[in-house]
Amino acid sequence: MSSAKRGQSPGRGLEGVVALESAISAIDGTAGELLYAGYDIRDLARECSFEEVAFLLWHNRLPGPAELDDLRRQLQKDRMLPPEVMDFLLDLDPGANAMAALRTAVSLLGVCDEEGETMSREANLSKAIRLTARMPTVIAAFDRIRRGKKAVAPLDSGSLAGNFLYMLNNRPPSAVAERTFDACLTLHAEHGLNASTFTARVIAATLSDIYSAISGAIGALKGPLHGGANMEVMRTLLEVDSGDVDPAKFVREKLARRERVMGFGHRVYRTLDPRAAILREMSDGLSAEGDSRKWFDISLVMMETMEREKGLYPNVDFFSASVYHTLGIAMDLYTPIFAMSRVTGWTAHVLEQWADNRLIRPRAAYSGPRRRRVPPIRTRRS
Amino acid sequence: MSSAKRGQSPGRGLEGVVALESAISAIDGTAGELLYAGYDIRDLARECSFEEVAFLLWHNRLPGPAELDDLRRQLQKDRMLPPEVMDFLLDLDPGANAMAALRTAVSLLGVCDEEGETMSREANLSKAIRLTARMPTVIAAFDRIRRGKKAVAPLDSGSLAGNFLYMLNNRPPSAVAERTFDACLTLHAEHGLNASTFTARVIAATLSDIYSAISGAIGALKGPLHGGANMEVMRTLLEVDSGDVDPAKFVREKLARRERVMGFGHRVYRTLDPRAAILREMSDGLSAEGDSRKWFDISLVMMETMEREKGLYPNVDFFSASVYHTLGIAMDLYTPIFAMSRVTGWTAHVLEQWADNRLIRPRAAYSGPRRRRVPPIRTRRS
Repeated sequence: MSSAKRGQSPGRGLEGVVALESAISAIDGTAGELLYAGYDIRDLARECSFEEVAFLLWHNRLPGPAELDDLRRQLQKDRMLPPEVMDFLLDLDPGANAMAALRTAVSLLGVCDEEGETMSREANLSKAIRLTARMPTVIAAFDRIRRGKKAVAPLDSGSLAGNFLYMLNNRPPSAVAERTFDACLTLHAEHGLNASTFTARVIAATLSDIYSAISGAIGALKGPLHGGANMEVMRTLLEVDSGDVDPAKFVREKLARRERVMGFGHRVYRTLDPRAAILREMSDGLSAEGDSRKWFDISLVMMETMEREKGLYPNVDFFSASVYHTLGIAMDLYTPIFAMSRVTGWTAHVLEQWADNRLIRPRAAYSGPRRRRVPPIRTRRS
Repeated sequence: MSSAKRGQSPGRGLEGVVALESAISAIDGTAGELLYAGYDIRDLARECSFEEVAFLLWHNRLPGPAELDDLRRQLQKDRMLPPEVMDFLLDLDPGANAMAALRTAVSLLGVCDEEGETMSREANLSKAIRLTARMPTVIAAFDRIRRGKKAVAPLDSGSLAGNFLYMLNNRPPSAVAERTFDACLTLHAEHGLNASTFTARVIAATLSDIYSAISGAIGALKGPLHGGANMEVMRTLLEVDSGDVDPAKFVREKLARRERVMGFGHRVYRTLDPRAAILREMSDGLSAEGDSRKWFDISLVMMETMEREKGLYPNVDFFSASVYHTLGIAMDLYTPIFAMSRVTGWTAHVLEQWADNRLIRPRAAYSGPRRRRVPPIRTRRS
């Protein structure tokens, strides 16, 4: 939709303005399709691991068997945190904001990285891999330490998804849990030029380093207008459950009060968000394994009610809430987990920016006063 | 100049695209004028202190006497660093990148700020003041610690400029040095929608916090295409001096080799950068006080040669190099000092963004492949 149609002054928020070309992902909101480098997200989530998807985003093609082995080994080898970063996490106030902590830890990873200021494509790809390997360790250690538990050292084998759940809970996840979480990471890895990805590219375009770009992107994702929606969805699910209300009635009453029901509708998708469809299946499978289908069942009734009453479909945030909750993940880690997946897309965009760089610098239209004279301070009024 | 004229695809780097309205500053490149909230930068640099300019940027008007006293007191009171930030600086590798350290320290200031997540205008203005008060302490402590010296605790009185030079050198600056540095801070405080300011606004527009916006902006300023030019100028001056070459000959030879001479010309100003004119005067005055006019004299000859040979005028970076060097400031602190001044403009833009917020999110044109099928991994070629 053009910005003019919406009645905004042209260019406000740059809506509809093409800022750059990218080969990393394509979104067809009308068809409900999302492609990473030409591959349908549904195929990738079902047939590929998150590690394969990371390779795809960085290289614009899927890895061969030896390449995938190499990448896995590098991601395993790089999981440990430098002592400075571990000290920072150990000294944190237990009430610290999780995204502020992640932003600082990533910035500090940059300070500690000996290759931090090296700008070859090879060095930057290594740093992208290190960031992807270490952000899960930061998040898991942050969560355990604030709960008064000892941080769990990362495994030097296995998938990124499985190792994260292991570090978080100090026990290996079930195969279904690992597979489901792996798919969640794939589904959140990339989504075009959203505010955090755009932030990463604006920073990178000054030829600053990758840690500057990614800590900036984390700062943007921290905003409630960007990340954070799946946390709101979970708050709603908990509200329905604790109030012991019928979820259909809950939704209808919320709509009657003209309140927003979180997790439905999407700025881009006019039909079902393809990521929500996959998550719905996976959430079903995961619930079947556990001792409670409660969250999935509440979600399903809410979904059906929203479709009937408002013609709105769930988005990716809707089913990821109950999935993460079922996996035993604290609510305020949902956005950090989003970041630990999206770092693959962010770094892919940074590498793409540098392959053909140009400073990103729009104009502001001046709307202030002209030609004021400085009066002596004693004559000024407050 | 329109982007089409330069032969770029339209919108590339968003050049010439109006992203938003702002009342904070106006630049007239043809007339060589820069206005902060309607006041000519020449008047502000000569007649106002940096503290008055900070008030102007945040409130869009100059302070009355009581308001200025209040702001000064707040800026003095807030200078001390939380112990976590001091510990971070004490544990740093002496070779750490100064901008990466500043980015991390600012992010950490956010983690430690009890008001960090409070989003009222009042709280955000307090945070803007705290950031402005503390960034000088971070930079001075960083520099002293890496030189094996004890960090100097900030004074609880006097100007921000004077206190910074005191903390850096552990002795009070001369009146001329303090006044010159104060004017340097005013001259760097604001300059429209450059890449770092734009970064701060993109991050803020997700309704993320001010520390996310400012640490992101520092990350953008860190890039050599944005900050860092005055460091390059100083490298050139040192090269001329150590080679004992005639500066005019040095410039002519560099031009003959088609090499760029740093500190000349500006993307916006077609005539003399008004900030350079003020700095030239001040650099002259500062040199007259010290035991050496060497750097000023070299700079003058280079300036005259560049104007004669290329018709190019010096920009703000050119004379700030010799000024900072004369003040005893290490070269790699020039960009951090730029940041400790520009934080006033950045935070003014963040507050302006929030006063009438809209997500900033342009589009990318997809340039990648369509419709690829995922082949089984064993059949893939590397």
